Amino acid sequence: MEQVLGELLPKPAGPQSEAMEAMRYAVLGGGKRLRPFLLVECARLFGSDNEGVYLAAGALECLHVYSLIHDDLPCMDDDDLRRGKLAVHKQYDEAMAVLAGDALLTLAFEVLSDARVHQDANIRLKLMAGLAHAGGIHGMIGGQVIDIYAKNLNHDEELIRQLQALKTSALIKYAAVSGGQLAGASETDIKNMATYSEALGLAFQIRDDTLDFEGDAATMGKAVKKDAGLGKVTFVSIHGLENAKMQAEALGVQAKEALSTYGEKADVLRGTVDFVLHRQK
Amino acid sequence: MEQVLGELLPKPAGPQSEAMEAMRYAVLGGGKRLRPFLLVECARLFGSDNEGVYLAAGALECLHVYSLIHDDLPCMDDDDLRRGKLAVHKQYDEAMAVLAGDALLTLAFEVLSDARVHQDANIRLKLMAGLAHAGGIHGMIGGQVIDIYAKNLNHDEELIRQLQALKTSALIKYAAVSGGQLAGASETDIKNMATYSEALGLAFQIRDDTLDFEGDAATMGKAVKKDAGLGKVTFVSIHGLENAKMQAEALGVQAKEALSTYGEKADVLRGTVDFVLHRQK
Repeated sequence: MEQVLGELLPKPAGPQSEAMEAMRYAVLGGGKRLRPFLLVECARLFGSDNEGVYLAAGALECLHVYSLIHDDLPCMDDDDLRRGKLAVHKQYDEAMAVLAGDALLTLAFEVLSDARVHQDANIRLKLMAGLAHAGGIHGMIGGQVIDIYAKNLNHDEELIRQLQALKTSALIKYAAVSGGQLAGASETDIKNMATYSEALGLAFQIRDDTLDFEGDAATMGKAVKKDAGLGKVTFVSIHGLENAKMQAEALGVQAKEALSTYGEKADVLRGTVDFVLHRQK
Repeated sequence: MEQVLGELLPKPAGPQSEAMEAMRYAVLGGGKRLRPFLLVECARLFGSDNEGVYLAAGALECLHVYSLIHDDLPCMDDDDLRRGKLAVHKQYDEAMAVLAGDALLTLAFEVLSDARVHQDANIRLKLMAGLAHAGGIHGMIGGQVIDIYAKNLNHDEELIRQLQALKTSALIKYAAVSGGQLAGASETDIKNMATYSEALGLAFQIRDDTLDFEGDAATMGKAVKKDAGLGKVTFVSIHGLENAKMQAEALGVQAKEALSTYGEKADVLRGTVDFVLHRQK
């Protein structure tokens, strides 16, 4: 994945070279790579494991990293650390963080349009349309909007479910579904990937919230205990730490149930559930 | 165009409604609409004038407006006025400006993926790939990077040509070329649209620079005389006002020459050259 990302990112050259370096700085050498990993493993489950799968996974990671860069901006979550190093707006400056993020978002679509991703233009188009929807105002950006402005809204269970379904699960679901689509999986299989990844995505976000509450900043490579200070709506703020953890475990069971027909071929995806629930960063 | 934009933008609803309002605030009720106008008129020149052409033009305008919103941010050009009203970060706040811009950029690709744009998936894919390239680090964003960081570079003629070819001409060229592509124009015709719009785009940017130097803030709906204060590289800073105007006129002649085979059918596109050269805002 590191190699694929290194190749699809522009090589610094010309008068824009510093921005290209900022894009590489943000994308390379860090991160769990959960989304590209899921895309690749879901494609593998249905027999595909070619260059196109990795390119699509790389495009998805570019889109994810753009969202991290913009979320870290002072006007947003104001985080100076990301993936154990300085956030882009600290390593460079705020303008560069805005522009590098914009460029990575745009690059994600450029990469997906490449014929090497899949020979069938209809599949590439489906991946691009899906990414635009999952990453847009009805998906990830919508979740970030709620996250930042939710102080003005009622902090009820429904809102937080919606926030997290949009902010995190939308892209995680996209990863699993688009992996299946690239591999030509059946409608039933795609539906199973959707069920699996929706539960996984929600569990991932709940773990994010509990980690923010009880995690270790050095291990995580970013600041912790920020949610409460920012007045953020989280599963922990509504249900308390233990209840939130129980909900995450229950979602893990749901996620694995969606894999019941795939036997040991799906062991990697089952292991991913355990990783998400018990990760320390 | 206003109607098309009003329909393709999300209707404010749910907990993200304020961000949807910000998207509409930024896009609707202002602007010259030069890019969508060019796209529609170039499609018309080759016989197409359907819903899909307007949708593609709307997508392009969404992408253009996102770039304006982000360019106006305090960390970028720091402009409080845009299209005669408060910039998004002043009307709302900076986080909303980042998010509404991100959402509009993403929406542009979602709209282009819609089957109503063109029945042929290959054409839609070509439009999306073209927009990602024209709007990315090798296109518009690259130009903005040079514009903001050019203080550290040599202000030579080549750099400024490159800056302006990227920052403004890339999207203007995309408008003309994609209009032709939607209408099924021949390779020769597409090449003529490219030649026409490259010259037009450069003339447009030079007029932008001369307007910043001698324009009227009230007429323009934004601040003027900002380039010199920001140490920006412009045609005026290198060649002086009169020389810059002469270069723009010469480019206008070039643009019209590319239309020589189309007779009076291309009169609207010729008139667009005159509009661009003599506009007061």
